[in-house]
Amino acid sequence: MSDGERLTPDVVHALISGALRRCNTSAENAASVADALLAAELAGQRGHGLRRVPTYAAQSAVGKVDGHATPRLEQHKAGAALVDAANGFAYPAIALAQDWLAKTCPEQGIAIAGITRSHHCGVAGVVVEALAEQGFAAMLFANTPAAMAPWGGKRALFGTNPIAFSAPLNNDDPVTVDISLSRVARGKIMAANQSGEAIPEGWAFDADGAPTTDAAAALAGTMAPLGDAKGTVLALMVELLCAGLTGANYSFEQTSFLNAEGGPPGAGQTLLAIDPGLFGNDARDRFALMAQMIEDTDGARLPGRRRQAMRADFVANGIPVDAKLIADIQAIGA
Amino acid sequence: MSDGERLTPDVVHALISGALRRCNTSAENAASVADALLAAELAGQRGHGLRRVPTYAAQSAVGKVDGHATPRLEQHKAGAALVDAANGFAYPAIALAQDWLAKTCPEQGIAIAGITRSHHCGVAGVVVEALAEQGFAAMLFANTPAAMAPWGGKRALFGTNPIAFSAPLNNDDPVTVDISLSRVARGKIMAANQSGEAIPEGWAFDADGAPTTDAAAALAGTMAPLGDAKGTVLALMVELLCAGLTGANYSFEQTSFLNAEGGPPGAGQTLLAIDPGLFGNDARDRFALMAQMIEDTDGARLPGRRRQAMRADFVANGIPVDAKLIADIQAIGA
Repeated sequence: MSDGERLTPDVVHALISGALRRCNTSAENAASVADALLAAELAGQRGHGLRRVPTYAAQSAVGKVDGHATPRLEQHKAGAALVDAANGFAYPAIALAQDWLAKTCPEQGIAIAGITRSHHCGVAGVVVEALAEQGFAAMLFANTPAAMAPWGGKRALFGTNPIAFSAPLNNDDPVTVDISLSRVARGKIMAANQSGEAIPEGWAFDADGAPTTDAAAALAGTMAPLGDAKGTVLALMVELLCAGLTGANYSFEQTSFLNAEGGPPGAGQTLLAIDPGLFGNDARDRFALMAQMIEDTDGARLPGRRRQAMRADFVANGIPVDAKLIADIQAIGA
Repeated sequence: MSDGERLTPDVVHALISGALRRCNTSAENAASVADALLAAELAGQRGHGLRRVPTYAAQSAVGKVDGHATPRLEQHKAGAALVDAANGFAYPAIALAQDWLAKTCPEQGIAIAGITRSHHCGVAGVVVEALAEQGFAAMLFANTPAAMAPWGGKRALFGTNPIAFSAPLNNDDPVTVDISLSRVARGKIMAANQSGEAIPEGWAFDADGAPTTDAAAALAGTMAPLGDAKGTVLALMVELLCAGLTGANYSFEQTSFLNAEGGPPGAGQTLLAIDPGLFGNDARDRFALMAQMIEDTDGARLPGRRRQAMRADFVANGIPVDAKLIADIQAIGA
C-alpha cells in the first residue's frame, strides 16, 4: 500500500474493527466504533478518524475503556432518557440515544438524551447530522478533557467542548454546524511544538495565564477560547448541559482521551432532537430558505456542504489514507 | 430630579407603564413591558431598560407594535407550544411561554416554546434566570434585525442573536450566561460615530466586506462576529432555532427595533426549560460544584454574579437614572 492510495469504506471499516477486536473489544462495539471513525474519515475529519485507532486500542487493551461494555438507557421523564455508557466507547451509547430520540421526538416535539460515563464522541457534526437525515433538527453538547480556563483564570476547568447543530431541509442535505470553543484546535499547537515553530499570538496562554507564542509553554498552559470571555461562558454552558445535568465528569475531572493512563475519562454528552413540525408548520421549508440565502451569498459557504461533498467523493473514489498509519493499525494486537 | 439621583423600582415601573399607556398600549401590556424594562435596569443593562421607552412608545403610537395585542399560546406536541405574540411587545408573550414551560417541564423533563410575530426580547439573561429562579435550567435563542454577514459575505443575514442559559443552584442564585454573537455591541460603534472617533480593528466590516476602523463605514456595513467564522455559524444556528423553527421572520426579513418606520419586525424567540431532575439525579448539586470551582479561581468571575449584585444594590438603594431621559419619558404623550 503506497502513499496517495485510497481504500474503500468497507476496507477501512474492517481495518478499524479488526484492530479493536484484537484489543479486548467485543465485535459489536468494535463495529460501532468503526462506523463512527469511518464516518469521520468520510467527513474529512482525519483527526477523529483512523488516527484514533492506536490510542483507542491501547485504552481498551488496558481497560481504560471497557471494550465489552453494554450501554443502558433509562427513561426518567416523558421526553428525557439517560444513557450509561458504562465506561465503554461513546459510540454504542450515542447510537442508543439516537434511536430513542428518533422514536420519542415525534410525539413529544422535543426530546433530550444525556450520556454519562462516556468517552470521545468523535465528530459532533456527524452525530447530529445522523438525526437530521432522519428528519429531526438536533443539537449536541459534549465535553472533553480540560483545556481552557475561565476567562481571567489560569487553571483549565473547561474542555474545548463542541457544540453541533443540524437541521433537515425539505429539498437537500441537512445544514450542519459543528464548532469547538477553542480558537484553534489543540492539534495545531502540538504540531507546532513537534516542528519547533512558534504559534501565532492569540492561540494560547502559558501556565501563568499570560499570552504566549511558545508552543511548549502553550501545551503546559491553556487554550484561548473563541471570542475571549464569551467563548469561556459558552464552554461553561456546555459543561453544565452535558456533565452537570447528566452526572458525567466535568472536564477538570477527566483523564485524557489520547493515552492509556489513568481511569476512564467519564465524559458527558447531551443530545437533543426537535421535530420540525412541533409548532404546527413544516420548519424544513424555512430552513431551506435560509440555506438558499447563504448559498446565494458571494464568498460565503453553507456549513456542512464541504464535508458532504468530501463524503460523496470518498464513497465514490475511496478514502485517502496514510500508508504508515494503516500499517500501524494492521500491526495492533497482531 | 437631578443627575446622580436614584429612583425606587416602583417609581421606575410607574414611569414606564404610564408613558406606554399614553401611547396606545393597554394597561396590562404596559405593566408587562414595565416589568421587563425594570428588570433590565435592575440588572444594570441600561441599553435594554429606560432608554427603550421613547422608541417603544413611538412604535406603539403608530402601530408598528400593537400595544393592545393579546398573545396566544397553542400546544402542538406534549413538550412543545407556539406563542403568537401577535405583533405586540415580546414581554407578554415571553411571560405566557414561561408559565407554560414551568407547568409542562416537570412532567416532560424538557419543554420548548417558540414565539413568533415578536419584538425585542430585552435582556436574554433575565428571561432564562426567571425560569432558573423557579428551579429549571433554561435556554433562550433570539434573533434581532440583521447586522452580521455569513463569514466571507457582505450582506447582513443574521442579527447579533443572543444565546442565554441559566442553571439553578441548590444553595445560591442561579448561574446565568448571556452573550450576543457580535464581537462588540452595535451601540459602541454608534457612540464612536457620534463622537467622531475611530473604532478598533476587528469590530466591523464596511459595505464591501472589508475590515474598517471608520465608525460610519461600519454602520453602513456589518458587525464582526465573535470568533470569526465560528461566530457566524452560531448566529445561523440561532436563526434556524428561533425563526426557522417558529415561522418568525429571519433577521434579514425584520424591520428595526429602534425606530417607528415600517411594519412590525416579527422577530422570533425560542425558549427551552429543563428539569434538573430529568435524569434521575438532582443536577443542582453538580451545577453548584462547577460554580464553586469558578468562584475559587483567582481572576475569574462567575457569570451572572455581577448583575445579581447590582440588582441587590438597586433594590435596596434605588436605581441610578439619567434626569434628561426621565424628563423625556414623563413628556411622552403628555
